[in-house]
Amino acid sequence: MGVRVAVAGASGYAGGELLRLIAGHPGLDLVAATGDSSAGRAVTDLHPHLATLAGVPLRPTAPEEFADAELVFLALPHGHSAALAAALPAGVKVVDLGADHRLVDPADWHRYYPGEHAGRWTYGLPELPGQRAAIAAADRVAATGCYVVASTLPLAPLIAAGVADPDDVVVVAASGTSGAGRSPKPHLLGSEVLNDVSAYKVGTHQHTPEIKQATGARSLSFTPLLAPMPRGILATVTARPTGTAGAGEVRQVLAEAYADEPFVSLLPDGTWPHTAATFGSNGCQLQITIDADAGRIVAVSAIDNLGKGAAGQAVQCANLMLGLPETAGLTANGVAP
Amino acid sequence: MGVRVAVAGASGYAGGELLRLIAGHPGLDLVAATGDSSAGRAVTDLHPHLATLAGVPLRPTAPEEFADAELVFLALPHGHSAALAAALPAGVKVVDLGADHRLVDPADWHRYYPGEHAGRWTYGLPELPGQRAAIAAADRVAATGCYVVASTLPLAPLIAAGVADPDDVVVVAASGTSGAGRSPKPHLLGSEVLNDVSAYKVGTHQHTPEIKQATGARSLSFTPLLAPMPRGILATVTARPTGTAGAGEVRQVLAEAYADEPFVSLLPDGTWPHTAATFGSNGCQLQITIDADAGRIVAVSAIDNLGKGAAGQAVQCANLMLGLPETAGLTANGVAP
Amino acid sequence: MGVRVAVAGASGYAGGELLRLIAGHPGLDLVAATGDSSAGRAVTDLHPHLATLAGVPLRPTAPEEFADAELVFLALPHGHSAALAAALPAGVKVVDLGADHRLVDPADWHRYYPGEHAGRWTYGLPELPGQRAAIAAADRVAATGCYVVASTLPLAPLIAAGVADPDDVVVVAASGTSGAGRSPKPHLLGSEVLNDVSAYKVGTHQHTPEIKQATGARSLSFTPLLAPMPRGILATVTARPTGTAGAGEVRQVLAEAYADEPFVSLLPDGTWPHTAATFGSNGCQLQITIDADAGRIVAVSAIDNLGKGAAGQAVQCANLMLGLPETAGLTANGVAP
Amino acid sequence: MGVRVAVAGASGYAGGELLRLIAGHPGLDLVAATGDSSAGRAVTDLHPHLATLAGVPLRPTAPEEFADAELVFLALPHGHSAALAAALPAGVKVVDLGADHRLVDPADWHRYYPGEHAGRWTYGLPELPGQRAAIAAADRVAATGCYVVASTLPLAPLIAAGVADPDDVVVVAASGTSGAGRSPKPHLLGSEVLNDVSAYKVGTHQHTPEIKQATGARSLSFTPLLAPMPRGILATVTARPTGTAGAGEVRQVLAEAYADEPFVSLLPDGTWPHTAATFGSNGCQLQITIDADAGRIVAVSAIDNLGKGAAGQAVQCANLMLGLPETAGLTANGVAP
Repeated sequence: MGVRVAVAGASGYAGGELLRLIAGHPGLDLVAATGDSSAGRAVTDLHPHLATLAGVPLRPTAPEEFADAELVFLALPHGHSAALAAALPAGVKVVDLGADHRLVDPADWHRYYPGEHAGRWTYGLPELPGQRAAIAAADRVAATGCYVVASTLPLAPLIAAGVADPDDVVVVAASGTSGAGRSPKPHLLGSEVLNDVSAYKVGTHQHTPEIKQATGARSLSFTPLLAPMPRGILATVTARPTGTAGAGEVRQVLAEAYADEPFVSLLPDGTWPHTAATFGSNGCQLQITIDADAGRIVAVSAIDNLGKGAAGQAVQCANLMLGLPETAGLTANGVAP
Repeated sequence: MGVRVAVAGASGYAGGELLRLIAGHPGLDLVAATGDSSAGRAVTDLHPHLATLAGVPLRPTAPEEFADAELVFLALPHGHSAALAAALPAGVKVVDLGADHRLVDPADWHRYYPGEHAGRWTYGLPELPGQRAAIAAADRVAATGCYVVASTLPLAPLIAAGVADPDDVVVVAASGTSGAGRSPKPHLLGSEVLNDVSAYKVGTHQHTPEIKQATGARSLSFTPLLAPMPRGILATVTARPTGTAGAGEVRQVLAEAYADEPFVSLLPDGTWPHTAATFGSNGCQLQITIDADAGRIVAVSAIDNLGKGAAGQAVQCANLMLGLPETAGLTANGVAP
Repeated sequence: MGVRVAVAGASGYAGGELLRLIAGHPGLDLVAATGDSSAGRAVTDLHPHLATLAGVPLRPTAPEEFADAELVFLALPHGHSAALAAALPAGVKVVDLGADHRLVDPADWHRYYPGEHAGRWTYGLPELPGQRAAIAAADRVAATGCYVVASTLPLAPLIAAGVADPDDVVVVAASGTSGAGRSPKPHLLGSEVLNDVSAYKVGTHQHTPEIKQATGARSLSFTPLLAPMPRGILATVTARPTGTAGAGEVRQVLAEAYADEPFVSLLPDGTWPHTAATFGSNGCQLQITIDADAGRIVAVSAIDNLGKGAAGQAVQCANLMLGLPETAGLTANGVAP
Repeated sequence: MGVRVAVAGASGYAGGELLRLIAGHPGLDLVAATGDSSAGRAVTDLHPHLATLAGVPLRPTAPEEFADAELVFLALPHGHSAALAAALPAGVKVVDLGADHRLVDPADWHRYYPGEHAGRWTYGLPELPGQRAAIAAADRVAATGCYVVASTLPLAPLIAAGVADPDDVVVVAASGTSGAGRSPKPHLLGSEVLNDVSAYKVGTHQHTPEIKQATGARSLSFTPLLAPMPRGILATVTARPTGTAGAGEVRQVLAEAYADEPFVSLLPDGTWPHTAATFGSNGCQLQITIDADAGRIVAVSAIDNLGKGAAGQAVQCANLMLGLPETAGLTANGVAP
């Protein structure tokens, strides 16, 4: 008998990935999966890849559906988490995959999202200093945004160590299409995304303040790209080095930061990350160099936006909150080719 | 402590998938991974997605490398399995992913492959009647060809039940590029396969006799296609109905054949298989209908060519041979989207 | 000064391809492009690839918009062509890319389409015997369905020559996503079609009667597949040989049928068609063999579903109707890789 | 009768695109196509999409093969252009698609390429101030590198106008796989590039000095990415604004620079470039903004790496050199979807 968990908002891509991870998790039992517009439909109608859930129906997203759950994952549209969380029984732990409880500064929320700011929860990025213990002690955790994970893992240690200038950071990050969600919008059709890389929300993406908050960057130029693949984020992070640290030294900062991390791999020198290597996993690949001519540190990261960028991260947090092994039900091994 | 297993030929795609499955298997421990031309290189140099194997080197494919193994998976080029198998210590169990020991009739071997016929081993398709027990009792098992699995699971029960005519079978099956292997041939470049579907080896593919042997088809037109995706096979199998069985009755044949099978899903009526739903899994999706106007049964199957079509199948056989739960380390759930 | 042409229904993919071909055509001038739900929007808002049409707006699809046109292309949803055609000024020539006027037998129409049968127009496949002259003499032409072109070019000559049995034809054809149109349906999202091949409308596709009509097949099993590419159809057509004709003789039938055709290429023996080779073109690649063991002719064709399968075909017909060189504004050369 | 042209190095992707453009060009006649390792093979064996060249063989790359040519395109590996150019008959015009004659400073050559520096030719980017006339007057033109075009078109006018700081430029550019050439390297297999975006040659790409030379940038951090599509480059170019110019003013710089350019489109405000919109064309899409918070200009460009990035550019230069209309045989319209 595992811990009883539920997924609110199980019809989307992050919700589906949560269901997949829970189905393969040795310590979690799914007791409810909900979706408002999909209530009554079979899980496999929406997620035909989840063969082991054949016969399981989606329930409406109502508080009473979660009565049996010890922990609830919220994979709801932005702005819907607070109300549901407030209506859950006392003692139920919650991991929110939405943006509602990530931002410290309400002004950041109001600039990018509609509605009221719901207040901050413990930030669900275990690899940040101190966060692993904080998550383990929390009942409410706000899991990270996908671009934020990809940007923060390479950058935060560099700023914290004082080797990267927080005042001149440029991030260009290419995402697979599942990051744009499952609403059938014309520009997300296969006919449109095949053969195509494009930029969008240049300088205006809602993850911008969260990246700054999580990394300590004070000035950030952030350009997201859409790439013709279903999953994956490749982030190119550049910043000016401070002082005289060379390539070996900045590399050493990352090596030390992640020496004991089960999901973060600093690749051998000269080998650069590939999103395909993280497909379906909770892993993150990193590499870093200094371009001496340009006077810039260049760090590159790869994650699966639905894995370490969303559902994998959420399960990792849940494992910590529940006292399970942190890696239970997760893997750093991607599905490739 | 799990059962000690080794992989001979770990540098290719099937070998890499074996390593991935073994790394996530609760009852198997990897004791050796070998590759002739890649000996000495790191596993992660060839398979950067296998983060948990960082630091593990590939060894040469020599008999002494398998001294500690209780079971060896052979993922070698065709024609190399017999010699290595003969040189392994007595008592070592073997699962061969190559074609060497699949065919009953030496004439079939000689028509499609060079060199001597190595003789038949127990055929590794557990879902065939009687094969599950035979595999469990065997020390040497020949796992199935990828197109053969995709063709046999929908067709064999129909011929066995006498509802499909074995004398007029047409199979057209589209495969992802990993099925063509890892040798860098010009026509397999990304630039060539993107935007492209093509036919190849029309009427001459080496899996043709194996499909006939496994299904009981006496006349088979088999056309393989190459599709722009890394994994997956979608097989369209058509045959003339015999007698007066209708769509409901032929569907019932498949429903009964696979009612208790953990990896084979007959989809709800009207829902057709998608390769994406089997990506990274050991699952198979099936659907069937009768086209009354055309006078043909049309059955469609989807598998992952590296999963149920190769490494997953091999692990399923190994589980049976070792007395482990048949589903250990495997899942029917694909990684999608 | 070229011939004045207009496109009704210019917002979809076939309409966009018509605009692209007209823009590059030395003998045609675009005088109007219309789209009901898109009226008022810029052409480049819907088709950002059509840089030379910057500043051109879409007009509503109303008869008066076509007052200046000498020929109108109709790329409307099925069932809308007849009413508009009837309202056009006398003397305006019309090429319809929809299904409305293709079928001879009203029963075929009623089985697959809603609404009344609009009656048959001259069938727009110039490579069929006699059709080139018929099209040149016609004022109303019904261009072909995409799967129909891909199936008919390899098959029709074989049945006409008496070398293929019309009573046992099996076609499996894989199409790129643009064939499914531009309506934002969930199953057409990039996230869904990437990594995926699937079958759909098995035995029930609306092109089935048109293929039979155009080829002379009396029994046809037709299975369409959706492949992860934006354009292209690869059709595998198999039929039983009649009499004793061998591979060389059936090949000769196609060689003679298309010896002088500018857009149809019978490939060198042993080379099989690739959709990528027809991308963006009006070309068709063919290859054929006899699988002696299976007792089946297997012919394979590749086209661009938006080219020879839709807009290219329509322009070829228009060239004939207008007395322009048949190849004007068209090419058999694909855009590859 | 058109101008007689030849292609040296016609077996690769840039060579194939040259053949395609020449075949569709109203003013050019192909008199020779050569390829050393492919000499004797049919053009359509290497480029099956070039149906109109059926029957044309590749000749060896020897000076005498070009005796009839008035202009020769060189699409050779780096380092091979100078020797062939020197051996051509006097009076033959040459457009080199290789890097041999692009760089002003021999030190730049020696840092990135082996062998001797061959000396500079007229630089083949007509949209740069003064270059159109220089190209028209030249007998030897060095066409641009693909990443250089994508970086230079958005950036050069900004630096020239003094609105962008040349001392802090960051470019991240994603390329389709054809940019990596046609040699069958393992990492370019379809199985490897599908589902994958990766970075390579970070800070060390050989186009870096050419971008600096063409744009006037003094400090450049350049990170190329490989994306899962056959063609296309999307470049994200960021630089610090100098002075107080706002988004409207920097946009106006590009608007004026390209107001009369047939192949460069500054998109409507708020619309961002898509590589798919330039597929198969000689067009370039641009967009620009200022991210006030980050204090950075962000400009994005899209081209086809084989079009405006290679063969299209070369034909545009040839048109100028030959006194043909600059746009002859070229289009700004992409093939989409």
